[in-house]
Amino acid sequence: MSARYTVLTGGVGGAKLVDGLYRILPPHSLTAIVNTGDDFRHYGLPVSPDIDTLLYTLSGRSNQTLGWGREGETWNFMAALTSLGGENWFNLGDGDLALHVLRGHALASGETLTSIIASFAAAWNLALTILPMTDDAVATFVDTDEGLLPFQRYFVERRCEPKLLSVQFDGAQAAAAAPGVVEAIMTSDAVLVAPSNPWLSVDPLLAIPTIRAALVATPAPVVAVSPLVGGTAVKGPTAKLMAELGLAITNDTIAEHYGSWLDALLIHGDDDAPAGAAHARTDTLMHTADDRICVARAALALAEGCSG
Amino acid sequence: MSARYTVLTGGVGGAKLVDGLYRILPPHSLTAIVNTGDDFRHYGLPVSPDIDTLLYTLSGRSNQTLGWGREGETWNFMAALTSLGGENWFNLGDGDLALHVLRGHALASGETLTSIIASFAAAWNLALTILPMTDDAVATFVDTDEGLLPFQRYFVERRCEPKLLSVQFDGAQAAAAAPGVVEAIMTSDAVLVAPSNPWLSVDPLLAIPTIRAALVATPAPVVAVSPLVGGTAVKGPTAKLMAELGLAITNDTIAEHYGSWLDALLIHGDDDAPAGAAHARTDTLMHTADDRICVARAALALAEGCSG
Repeated sequence: MSARYTVLTGGVGGAKLVDGLYRILPPHSLTAIVNTGDDFRHYGLPVSPDIDTLLYTLSGRSNQTLGWGREGETWNFMAALTSLGGENWFNLGDGDLALHVLRGHALASGETLTSIIASFAAAWNLALTILPMTDDAVATFVDTDEGLLPFQRYFVERRCEPKLLSVQFDGAQAAAAAPGVVEAIMTSDAVLVAPSNPWLSVDPLLAIPTIRAALVATPAPVVAVSPLVGGTAVKGPTAKLMAELGLAITNDTIAEHYGSWLDALLIHGDDDAPAGAAHARTDTLMHTADDRICVARAALALAEGCSG
Repeated sequence: MSARYTVLTGGVGGAKLVDGLYRILPPHSLTAIVNTGDDFRHYGLPVSPDIDTLLYTLSGRSNQTLGWGREGETWNFMAALTSLGGENWFNLGDGDLALHVLRGHALASGETLTSIIASFAAAWNLALTILPMTDDAVATFVDTDEGLLPFQRYFVERRCEPKLLSVQFDGAQAAAAAPGVVEAIMTSDAVLVAPSNPWLSVDPLLAIPTIRAALVATPAPVVAVSPLVGGTAVKGPTAKLMAELGLAITNDTIAEHYGSWLDALLIHGDDDAPAGAAHARTDTLMHTADDRICVARAALALAEGCSG
């Protein structure tokens, strides 16, 4: 049987690693399991930011300038919404809306998110398997010095400015992993964890009991790519959040947070080495497609070194 | 008490008459009661074509080139929808979507269509009252030689090509007129019927028992503007439909169709005069704002001539 690979991922940074893997692995050998803790309803439309970011990135539709959303996006919906007194703290692009409207209609018709995402990926000729972590409702909430905030209110509206006290994943304990998720982790030749924010983007997956158990039980090596570069995060609030939680902003903290199921951590340049986990070093910045391929190769090589 | 005017209207042609009236009547003296038989759900979003056409026309947002929809509209939603395999027989513009999304969200929250449309009109600073004919679900179906078709499938997807056998308005018999509708008809100084398609756009209003009863009972003169110009319709399938129903394409047919509640018919140029109703003549083509004002003045003058 040909080799299979699974990657757990969150948003923009994670999508870049998946893109690198997708460019070098044989078609159909890759499964991406995606955080849905950021998902929410906006004006009744179900928005799945991390899944859509992955779809846009892999299909060449991602907006390189904005760093999120679609290339060539227009904003006439938002302009009209605003003219009618609608809320404009969360930007829905005109093209982006198609995914939310189709998803909303299909969900209302009884289709699962898993099936909907598979049909989106097929329509855009993507030859990997993209799975939401769950078809159940899991919602990330952030407790801050301004009170408990739904994820997007914290992340988008308040731009991560409130001081973070703790994170919770409503519904995760009772959520079932989506069909195929546990099997992918258990039967892969390597399981990778993308350089997404461990506390906000990876932890929602780990909060689903069967996903955590599969990571512990899988015979495959589990390798994470650290989101830290030179003692800070490339993008997003990882470092700020670690400081607010009273944690040292080190790879050692990342490895310790992931815990015993982690076999090795891929770290950047001459950054600090985790004390409790095997590691390898590479330039983990992923500006270009070549960068993404290099990081993907390094992560796969580290996994291969861990196995057997 | 200052004079009040009410106009019953359908889509594009009707909106032009309302626009003419709105330009010459004192602010807040005009009530437009709008057909909602064309309303339908598309991908779960509630579309109200005639109401939105009126909102766009009165607020200066209507697309003069297309003859429907918004000025400066973009179509990135449709492009993305199509790329995902979605249906593209009904075009939803990017800006237009804002009304459907807001309406859908507000309806799901328990708001009535009447209240939603009032808030849209207020947001766009429109100083008339725009009322849907009903807050209940009424759906126009067309029985054709290709079978029974929902209105938009007949009108948009099939471009009125199937031969029409009859029209029905599901839900109309049990529908309540929206709050304010009966009062507006009963207490106005004049009631006008816009030059919309009598069988497709005005009949849905007449199919609601309390609206028909109010037209019969109102002490105000009721004046309709004929949709016929030189023995055909300016736009849309009125003449084709009349022929398919075996009716003479004359103003006499229009007046007879409306029946005893009609006090007078405003007709075009030297077109045939209805035998059974008072009438006046004017150029009823409404290309420019001035045209609209002229037709509005002629309709109001005819109503004034009928009263007292």
